[in-house]
Amino acid sequence: MAVSDELIAFAHRLADAAGQMILPYFRQRIAVANKPMIIEGREVFDPVTEADRQAEKAIRAIIERERPEDGILGEEFGERDGRNAYRWVLDPVDGTRAFINGRHEWGSLISLEENGRPVMGILDQPSIGERFIGVNGKATLHFRGAEVPLHVRQCEKLSDAVLCATHPDGYFSKGERDAFRRVQRAVKMSRWGGDCYIFGTMALGFTDLIIESAFKRWDVAALIPLVEGAGGVITNWQGGDCSGGGQCIAAGDRRIHAAALELLNA
Amino acid sequence: MAVSDELIAFAHRLADAAGQMILPYFRQRIAVANKPMIIEGREVFDPVTEADRQAEKAIRAIIERERPEDGILGEEFGERDGRNAYRWVLDPVDGTRAFINGRHEWGSLISLEENGRPVMGILDQPSIGERFIGVNGKATLHFRGAEVPLHVRQCEKLSDAVLCATHPDGYFSKGERDAFRRVQRAVKMSRWGGDCYIFGTMALGFTDLIIESAFKRWDVAALIPLVEGAGGVITNWQGGDCSGGGQCIAAGDRRIHAAALELLNA
Repeated sequence: MAVSDELIAFAHRLADAAGQMILPYFRQRIAVANKPMIIEGREVFDPVTEADRQAEKAIRAIIERERPEDGILGEEFGERDGRNAYRWVLDPVDGTRAFINGRHEWGSLISLEENGRPVMGILDQPSIGERFIGVNGKATLHFRGAEVPLHVRQCEKLSDAVLCATHPDGYFSKGERDAFRRVQRAVKMSRWGGDCYIFGTMALGFTDLIIESAFKRWDVAALIPLVEGAGGVITNWQGGDCSGGGQCIAAGDRRIHAAALELLNA
Repeated sequence: MAVSDELIAFAHRLADAAGQMILPYFRQRIAVANKPMIIEGREVFDPVTEADRQAEKAIRAIIERERPEDGILGEEFGERDGRNAYRWVLDPVDGTRAFINGRHEWGSLISLEENGRPVMGILDQPSIGERFIGVNGKATLHFRGAEVPLHVRQCEKLSDAVLCATHPDGYFSKGERDAFRRVQRAVKMSRWGGDCYIFGTMALGFTDLIIESAFKRWDVAALIPLVEGAGGVITNWQGGDCSGGGQCIAAGDRRIHAAALELLNA
């Protein structure tokens, strides 16, 4: 069943609330970084975790107040069982390393699951002011008051593909790294960094292939409706459902998705 | 001698003109990417080069009209000798790979040299609307109408440092890669991608160390006044002047600059 306009508007409000909590922490200068960052004699100050926590709290408060029957799964505060078919899956700051590096390639991920299947996903980048949303088989970018429909681009062959991955070594096991390199050797260009943001560029039609691993459910749930809504395909490395997390491969074009799967499993 | 307010205002106008030429090419969808991109029966369409060319043309036209005595060195249209102490060094689209990947981590580099020494540098990111400028011993970020003074952060030890480099393999020779890895193993965190933009994050105080190679003069000229204006240090891998291009190492704190130089040359 289609996600209602009311639910879509509600999701936008959750993203607004997250952005308002996070932005004051972005590019916050921590006084004298060469001293241990101790608060109240014990804690290391971590602006990302704090932003994450405050944003998730704000989102959960709105859901609990206005849609108390819905379930919630968030990175920071865990699971709250619902009493209907819906569950919100939340990762308010995806892209920690970019965030603490003062770069814009992080985002708030807000997903709605219906009976365990992600049916709406928002990737919000509040410091630039870009919001990607995938819902009801469509993907859209909201930016400076405009709403732009998003479509992946065609890419017939791996040799024409632009491949993105967050970190060449960071998130792959040794075997996964070898598999990744087989694909990497076959593409035209690879580009690092980006976390969730590269899925936005796939929906925009500028990234052909993304290969990641070690995802949690909240890292990927929002990205599935976004990529699929823009006409792409997103699965695990065996071609199956990736909504539970773990390995993930997304492609704008099914042909290179198939070709990359073959190389990953060669 | 200090760069005059008039010259600073002129440089801002050059950056404005560059942005206006480039933005129409950013995230331009090229029809059906799986077909060869042929224009007039022969040419492969390359939005970056076209944006680069149009922007450099626009900048050069303004300089030639209003400051005909100044020299110009641009990536696309080469050198024009001047008849005074000034030369403009231009790279309107630095970060080609990010640009064609639809990401924001590219920028327009506009530098003014006085007697061969870079005395003003602009790093403009028009799709986000951020402009970094270094001049007269200061660095500033212009963003949404505000002007924020920029300062690098202190970082005493490599083991606390965030290291950025554009691509782990892309721009290094085998020997340089080994040298780079000695530093990489000593830092807290490394992050890829970014091109000129990572120098902005250094001036903002969120990147401690940047190591690059294979720079051209127009890749680095604007970054020197920016990094130095924010209180950082930027040299070649021997600790000398890097304004001619080649290898480059920048640090927010002189202590880790010295420690990294030692490892690079170990």
